[in-house]
Amino acid sequence: MANDEIIFGVLTASDRASEGTYEDISGPAIESFLQEAIDSVFRIERKIVKDEQSVIENSLIELCNLGCAVIITTGGTGPAPRDVTPEATEVVCQKILPGFGEKMRAISLRHVPTAILSRQTAGVRDSTLILNLPGSPRSIRETIDEIWAAVPYCVDLIGGPYIETTEGPWAAWRPPHARRTIQR
Amino acid sequence: MANDEIIFGVLTASDRASEGTYEDISGPAIESFLQEAIDSVFRIERKIVKDEQSVIENSLIELCNLGCAVIITTGGTGPAPRDVTPEATEVVCQKILPGFGEKMRAISLRHVPTAILSRQTAGVRDSTLILNLPGSPRSIRETIDEIWAAVPYCVDLIGGPYIETTEGPWAAWRPPHARRTIQR
Amino acid sequence: MANDEIIFGVLTASDRASEGTYEDISGPAIESFLQEAIDSVFRIERKIVKDEQSVIENSLIELCNLGCAVIITTGGTGPAPRDVTPEATEVVCQKILPGFGEKMRAISLRHVPTAILSRQTAGVRDSTLILNLPGSPRSIRETIDEIWAAVPYCVDLIGGPYIETTEGPWAAWRPPHARRTIQR
Repeated sequence: MANDEIIFGVLTASDRASEGTYEDISGPAIESFLQEAIDSVFRIERKIVKDEQSVIENSLIELCNLGCAVIITTGGTGPAPRDVTPEATEVVCQKILPGFGEKMRAISLRHVPTAILSRQTAGVRDSTLILNLPGSPRSIRETIDEIWAAVPYCVDLIGGPYIETTEGPWAAWRPPHARRTIQR
Repeated sequence: MANDEIIFGVLTASDRASEGTYEDISGPAIESFLQEAIDSVFRIERKIVKDEQSVIENSLIELCNLGCAVIITTGGTGPAPRDVTPEATEVVCQKILPGFGEKMRAISLRHVPTAILSRQTAGVRDSTLILNLPGSPRSIRETIDEIWAAVPYCVDLIGGPYIETTEGPWAAWRPPHARRTIQR
Repeated sequence: MANDEIIFGVLTASDRASEGTYEDISGPAIESFLQEAIDSVFRIERKIVKDEQSVIENSLIELCNLGCAVIITTGGTGPAPRDVTPEATEVVCQKILPGFGEKMRAISLRHVPTAILSRQTAGVRDSTLILNLPGSPRSIRETIDEIWAAVPYCVDLIGGPYIETTEGPWAAWRPPHARRTIQR
């Protein structure tokens, strides 16, 4: 039985990266996490947009409509006026999952006291999970490594595809009744 | 001086339990916690309802109107479309107490990474404290044991009855000026 | 190059303190923290107001209009009906920073289980950071000591003045690119 290709969206919100005056290194950090952690057949849809709430909202909706199982954003979660990624996320989601922001702030606070300023959140739009990650590649990796274990089961619960993972701290955790053996 | 009977509400939100196709074991787990932890004269009002936001809202309001000091819910706090207990709780409460959800997620995360998905919250409606607990009996007990110490003083502050507890990790903590000696 | 005087607002929300039936000891605890921790030229604007949401909102706005870099409130963060400081804070802020409340509750929970009841939050109005602290002088000091390191960089990001600090657990942390040498 073949497994359908799973789609992940990776959205970088950054005025400078979208203008091309700054190379986006955060989006690629998320892509390389996915290459390492995902054991299902998948492809990535990428967007690099400016820090404009309506633009981010529309990009998130487009990624949902393409069938993304998970959309991972980077950038725009701080306290500055142009930081509007959490606002856009809250507008397009039907449910907010406050545990992700709490846990990611707690992880980042082990490394830097200004992690308290992050407003990262997560939420569900239809069958898509949207996760705000921090902006720097190092913070991205520190947080996503620790939270990813809960992502595949979340996607199961909201009606998305069955995501398989490689071995590592990010390995999917599911309650026994939700575990499947997939043959390829 | 006799102590008036204190009323606790226990509400199970579960499509399957309300249809009778599944035995509710979570509500009874809360009841047995109360039997063990409460040292005041009390009774329990029980409701088992389907995962329908308006039904949960109306049930919470009915339990408030019966005079419940605390209403403890179980079920419906996950990310799935039919999980709407936190939404119903937020609608009927005048004040939300985010500390309860944060702490309960932190407790459950010690045991299972998918605790990050829980959207449990707590809030106050008039003189009633409403607490969302997780769905499984084991998670219920893990979390309620650690958070209950703050519940009696919260009920004092919102104008509810003076709740006394037995010895254990759940024993009520109150600042010295709020401690009473009750004679029966 | 002279540094302009930085303004800090300190607002006590307390019915009893505003009526004069109770001496405000919480506002002075915040003032003495600032005297110890701030190494810039500064002055403090003080307000003592009753626990009335519209009064707190107007006072916060006045302090913002005076040019406060940071407004620190004390009082009114509990679950009681007259506790409305977080509500007033949310109304006047354009952005909420949930990390401050989460971290302050986690700090206070090490000392007392009823810290779970605190609804403290923080947010940004234009170039002013507003922080809700707990009510008791001891809790104020426990929490502000641990969170202050992130405050100066937050004020940088929202367009406020460059705040310098003395040595201590409260010493400002900034990423290397944001560090300045100020000559007086």
